[in-house]
Amino acid sequence: MEWAAVELSRAYRLLNPGCVVLVSVGDGEVDNLFPVSWNMPVRSDPPMVAILSGKDHHSYPIIARTGEFGLNVPDESIVDAVLGCGSTTGAEVRDKLTRFGLTRRAAARIAAPLVEEAVAGLECRVCQVVDLGDSSLLVAQVVAAAASPAHFVDGAYCFDNGLRLIHHLGGARFCVSDRSVEGREP
Amino acid sequence: MEWAAVELSRAYRLLNPGCVVLVSVGDGEVDNLFPVSWNMPVRSDPPMVAILSGKDHHSYPIIARTGEFGLNVPDESIVDAVLGCGSTTGAEVRDKLTRFGLTRRAAARIAAPLVEEAVAGLECRVCQVVDLGDSSLLVAQVVAAAASPAHFVDGAYCFDNGLRLIHHLGGARFCVSDRSVEGREP
Repeated sequence: MEWAAVELSRAYRLLNPGCVVLVSVGDGEVDNLFPVSWNMPVRSDPPMVAILSGKDHHSYPIIARTGEFGLNVPDESIVDAVLGCGSTTGAEVRDKLTRFGLTRRAAARIAAPLVEEAVAGLECRVCQVVDLGDSSLLVAQVVAAAASPAHFVDGAYCFDNGLRLIHHLGGARFCVSDRSVEGREP
Repeated sequence: MEWAAVELSRAYRLLNPGCVVLVSVGDGEVDNLFPVSWNMPVRSDPPMVAILSGKDHHSYPIIARTGEFGLNVPDESIVDAVLGCGSTTGAEVRDKLTRFGLTRRAAARIAAPLVEEAVAGLECRVCQVVDLGDSSLLVAQVVAAAASPAHFVDGAYCFDNGLRLIHHLGGARFCVSDRSVEGREP
């Protein structure tokens, strides 16, 4: 999918709607990809995000070593690949991108690949790790962002061209948002 | 709206799809209500959540004093009230619930009210505060949860009865999810 750079001050809006994201990690030699529904912006400018990651996760030491990860926003067209990435481990499936029919896209400022078929991508550098027991909250600064110009217009997602964002419900189920509404102050 | 208790081990699923939530705070004498799109579960069992709150926010000292807040999941039917709660401050509008046509519902285990018109409600006790500069990440345990049995079925949101969840895009715009899809592992 064609992407255009997104102004960093608007990058948080790529995560605002609470979609599941595909987290990409890698050091140029090995890489991995896993879905995370527990993600959110935590600051708009400079843009910062937080994601949850289990400490025993295959990708955790890769993030610890590189201090980086990518966030790729999928839409309904690749929901099966999202599910596949989440139901397998990088310890067994060494090349999840190929296994699930996805294509590597070179990132601008991190070594991890991004996902060609995604609607948007954010490149992130970890700046704070919050211990939550079995898992860690990884707080990271967004250092580059890009999105499909057909689906992210004037700093917000636009549904005029068939965008269908997916949000995790549980198990293999996702809800789909494919239209927007403008609130009116009562 | 009629609510039924939600098993605590499934409470995180009320926030899984990344909807905007109305945060309710109060001590039995004063209360307030404000929308937060930056929210997510951080643990499933026991259920824990995290929300962002600006330190200069009118409700911040109320949360600091009570150690509690409610999370109310609105749907499209009250999107205007969500916008109204977000574009006013409790410092000026002392009774936002009445101002925006919402009704108080007594919570089971916290002093803050919940919102009768919401699809679901979670009662939360703060257990960790992460300093992020101008704002704080409030990590809290869910101590009670309930949802409309027409819209939350077998531990997940169900769209058979007209549910239209809203996710913040930016400004006054929200995207709407009103159907679900089941992924199939490739």
